[in-house]
Amino acid sequence: MEYPDNIGINMYKWAKDLFPICRSLTGQGVRDTLAYLQKLIPELTIESINSGEQVFDWQVPDEWNIKQAYIENETGKRVVDFSDSNLHVMGYSAPVDLVLPLEELQQHLYSLPNQPDAIPYVTSYYQRRWGFCLTEKQRKSLKPGNYTVKIESTLTQGVLNYGELILPGETEKEILLSTYICHPSLANNELSGPIVTTALVQWISSLVNRKFTYRIVFLPETIGSICYLSRHIKKMQANIVAGFVITCIGDNNDYSYLPSRGEHSLADKVALHALENSVESFTKYNFLQRGSDERQYCAPGVDLPVCSVMRTKYGEYPEYHTSLDNLELISPAGLQGGFNILQQCILLLENNHKYEVTVLCEPQLGKRGLYPTLSSMNEDYTDIRTMMNFITYCDGNHDLVDIANKIGCYAINLIPLAEKLYKEGLLRKT
Amino acid sequence: MEYPDNIGINMYKWAKDLFPICRSLTGQGVRDTLAYLQKLIPELTIESINSGEQVFDWQVPDEWNIKQAYIENETGKRVVDFSDSNLHVMGYSAPVDLVLPLEELQQHLYSLPNQPDAIPYVTSYYQRRWGFCLTEKQRKSLKPGNYTVKIESTLTQGVLNYGELILPGETEKEILLSTYICHPSLANNELSGPIVTTALVQWISSLVNRKFTYRIVFLPETIGSICYLSRHIKKMQANIVAGFVITCIGDNNDYSYLPSRGEHSLADKVALHALENSVESFTKYNFLQRGSDERQYCAPGVDLPVCSVMRTKYGEYPEYHTSLDNLELISPAGLQGGFNILQQCILLLENNHKYEVTVLCEPQLGKRGLYPTLSSMNEDYTDIRTMMNFITYCDGNHDLVDIANKIGCYAINLIPLAEKLYKEGLLRKT
Amino acid sequence: MEYPDNIGINMYKWAKDLFPICRSLTGQGVRDTLAYLQKLIPELTIESINSGEQVFDWQVPDEWNIKQAYIENETGKRVVDFSDSNLHVMGYSAPVDLVLPLEELQQHLYSLPNQPDAIPYVTSYYQRRWGFCLTEKQRKSLKPGNYTVKIESTLTQGVLNYGELILPGETEKEILLSTYICHPSLANNELSGPIVTTALVQWISSLVNRKFTYRIVFLPETIGSICYLSRHIKKMQANIVAGFVITCIGDNNDYSYLPSRGEHSLADKVALHALENSVESFTKYNFLQRGSDERQYCAPGVDLPVCSVMRTKYGEYPEYHTSLDNLELISPAGLQGGFNILQQCILLLENNHKYEVTVLCEPQLGKRGLYPTLSSMNEDYTDIRTMMNFITYCDGNHDLVDIANKIGCYAINLIPLAEKLYKEGLLRKT
Repeated sequence: MEYPDNIGINMYKWAKDLFPICRSLTGQGVRDTLAYLQKLIPELTIESINSGEQVFDWQVPDEWNIKQAYIENETGKRVVDFSDSNLHVMGYSAPVDLVLPLEELQQHLYSLPNQPDAIPYVTSYYQRRWGFCLTEKQRKSLKPGNYTVKIESTLTQGVLNYGELILPGETEKEILLSTYICHPSLANNELSGPIVTTALVQWISSLVNRKFTYRIVFLPETIGSICYLSRHIKKMQANIVAGFVITCIGDNNDYSYLPSRGEHSLADKVALHALENSVESFTKYNFLQRGSDERQYCAPGVDLPVCSVMRTKYGEYPEYHTSLDNLELISPAGLQGGFNILQQCILLLENNHKYEVTVLCEPQLGKRGLYPTLSSMNEDYTDIRTMMNFITYCDGNHDLVDIANKIGCYAINLIPLAEKLYKEGLLRKT
Repeated sequence: MEYPDNIGINMYKWAKDLFPICRSLTGQGVRDTLAYLQKLIPELTIESINSGEQVFDWQVPDEWNIKQAYIENETGKRVVDFSDSNLHVMGYSAPVDLVLPLEELQQHLYSLPNQPDAIPYVTSYYQRRWGFCLTEKQRKSLKPGNYTVKIESTLTQGVLNYGELILPGETEKEILLSTYICHPSLANNELSGPIVTTALVQWISSLVNRKFTYRIVFLPETIGSICYLSRHIKKMQANIVAGFVITCIGDNNDYSYLPSRGEHSLADKVALHALENSVESFTKYNFLQRGSDERQYCAPGVDLPVCSVMRTKYGEYPEYHTSLDNLELISPAGLQGGFNILQQCILLLENNHKYEVTVLCEPQLGKRGLYPTLSSMNEDYTDIRTMMNFITYCDGNHDLVDIANKIGCYAINLIPLAEKLYKEGLLRKT
Repeated sequence: MEYPDNIGINMYKWAKDLFPICRSLTGQGVRDTLAYLQKLIPELTIESINSGEQVFDWQVPDEWNIKQAYIENETGKRVVDFSDSNLHVMGYSAPVDLVLPLEELQQHLYSLPNQPDAIPYVTSYYQRRWGFCLTEKQRKSLKPGNYTVKIESTLTQGVLNYGELILPGETEKEILLSTYICHPSLANNELSGPIVTTALVQWISSLVNRKFTYRIVFLPETIGSICYLSRHIKKMQANIVAGFVITCIGDNNDYSYLPSRGEHSLADKVALHALENSVESFTKYNFLQRGSDERQYCAPGVDLPVCSVMRTKYGEYPEYHTSLDNLELISPAGLQGGFNILQQCILLLENNHKYEVTVLCEPQLGKRGLYPTLSSMNEDYTDIRTMMNFITYCDGNHDLVDIANKIGCYAINLIPLAEKLYKEGLLRKT
């Protein structure tokens, strides 16, 4: 594709910069993240919606910010410290400043017995709690006695922020790219999402004669997409022809596909065609295995044509939602692979015309230098057959991807052929 | 379900009472049978249609009654006696009083060489004949010589009887239950049918807020359903949304499904869903293997949505249409299993609403106590996922059974969940 | 079927007569071939279209005729001679009269290294070339030196000929049979085509009460069908309900089916049903493997319901397009098999009515002598079941072939049953 080879390396650098920021549904970490992305894509605008506002069945939560947090033992040693890892504090923890014995402290500790070296990622957005997350090893090393726990956080009337970007095209019909920015220090799920999306935005901006308008959003998962839909649902329903939730797109393992609720939207068709023809293998999930913002975009009554193309799907790798989902799990090559597959989905959408042949019967291709004038069994007709097969399904009913599926080749490879025949006047676009 | 545990035992007792009655298409045996059932379901009315009346392409046959019948050998010993088994006389046998040699008698004897201990069930409804059915063993023991044969039967202008019962519901839309009462002393095919139907009627009568009206008929097979259709076809075509032919429903072996002619009616959908989710295994037949009153209900131009849910299907067990299809072949447990599966079909029909979620995007279930407020990998989300999966298909297009099929669970188990969400105001019925 | 047993032998004789003629897209060979066929089917008319005429995207080529051609070595010996085989000269070779050394001659020679005993069939219709085709063995035996090459051919303004025949039926709806007459001395591909078509025409002419009108064409492949379509497309689109390209229909090996572009036309349904029920096995190709005039008949915008029923498909046997596709490859039995399967397709089309039963519920077949009056397990009900199964799908929606597919039998065998029930007044045709 027409993109610098070092995009994987660039993306990985962005991930390193963004990794330390403590993101959550709301708060300074989200704003810092959006500010960083704005430097890479200046057209990005940062929007806000007030705490307490009703959005469909939900209310925008209070804004959460945190300065410091730790657990100190009797000797004054900080045995768990937020400054070591954002994950050490439960997301949306209420402030606390207490001395309490280990037995009581245990009620507020979260660890994973089966993954003794991993700090789990735990949140309590809609119920006031406080808590610390730590490795099972750390937890076992805690001796009986009193502990000082301190969480210097605030939960106050504020705003929920998200980033929005509209890249206009030749038509008002839209492609939606949606990614989330609410997970602290988690690399594959989530940083890979906003990072690959940012690289895609840079590439889309550079496309001349863009057919579609692109709606790109960076928002906190669930409540963010609900907020966004509550503001824009009518326009989105009128215009969006295909959309992708972009997440878990930076590791080097699997490729994955999770369909829209209807399973047969244009987004689904294109995603499946790209995966079937451009990667060695991938896992096909069903909508029952959903877990991200397609839950909102595909909800009944919302019904947007949105699916997910991922590398290893959330919930399907052991590091998921733990401190092991870190910068070692993703890589420049992993991010590049994710970028490539989504780029191809977009290229397919941009070129997915319905063609109709302009002459009755087969065109005389010989006189146009497109067909051998000698008929003999010794010739290799493979490319000729592909061309003739392509033409025979140019009936105005099949789009480029349909035809590629019919004739068993990758639609990306048919684009130059279609353009050549179009320029010869043998095809019209319907 | 809400039914006494001893229903299987009750049903078996009814079978024992009804077994000795000599039923046929017409006659006193049919009336005695209907009178017995009327004691169990007092709303049952007994209808009649005159011999000779034209019903579509058929004519109601003469009424057949029989007092006694036997074959006596030269020593005056009764070697075959109707009083031993109703099956000994061919159904609709003309009267006869003759002395004739064994060779001539043989023309009127029916036995099964491959089942030497079984008396076959033979009828000749529409051609005047006389005949005796006996075991192959009995037949072989007959010595050469003269035999006195006597059949004291009458074939006279009379009536064909059937039982009918309409249980009104909230709507005029109807469920049809059809079963037959024309086989003498045959237990699985046929007594299990009217008996399980009677138990279902008692249970349906007890249902409060019945959505559907129930049309239940007890009639002789083929000519009975033709008579009934000739009187009620317009109303049945206007109102019946699902129906079941109830037969072969009392043995303890297989479960079976035989589709309607169209194969995709509501009755079919519900029957398949119930069988797939509530019994260990079942045999799925196709409409080419039909053999009971669905031949009339599903005939072209009649086109009612009627299928059969059975235990072992007629024709598929060696005792079928012989004296071995007796009270030992059926059992309280067998009848109870048959009752249960049909009861579940009816419960599914009564509860098979199309639901539509009342809010856009996912509802906030946490604030209603329906969703955990703590997000952590340690939780078991199975029930939560079932609920979320159920909600996501509540789009007004899928009914309860459709959704259950989509999300891979038994719709019966979704009923309480659907009712809970409906009471929370999160669902409407469409 | 109602046809003399020796039709295979007759057809083979016609093949022998036609084999030596040098056919091409145009010229005297085509006219001689059509004149021969006209003797067998006098209603055949011979049409012409002028060289240079525009037909859709094509132009009718000049007429090609050839008197003699040879290559002589220095000793005056004719090492390659057109009088030995029509295939020795490239089709549409320009005239030439030259002496040139072997090295230069090689540029104009065509042989098959992998088939050293076969003369390849090579043409250059739309680019002026000259060339000789010979066996690899002949080629290798050529010694260095000068050769005299002479091709006495003409390429002049003339006509393209084709044969046309309309056999009127009860309706204007048409069956199309299309076969080609442009290959010189090739037996399976092509002579089997016009020969079997001719035998079919003789048989169709003899049919009384033909339902369909038959449009039969004998034309040069590709340019011929394009010419014909350019003249008749509107009427053909209005009337043709099914059509067959008839080619490769005389060998004794495989049977083959190649669908129309849409794959689900009446022609496809009938062809598949006939092949599935009347030959032991066959190969099912897809439209990507097309290669004859269905390329034109099924082109987008033309969209005629035309498929191919063949014996071994073109391109799928080693003798294809070489001198080995000769009279030894085809046989009376091979041609007869091809005739039979196409005859059955036509019989199916003629009898493929939609039937509707005239009575509600099952008809009383006993009173018509069509059903046993004795009901007993000892009877064989196979034929009865077939009849009842047939009747139950006579709902006005299924045609004869649909019903045969539903009930698992060959529709040809249902025709007498359908006629019997129709005469009884139990069926109407819709």
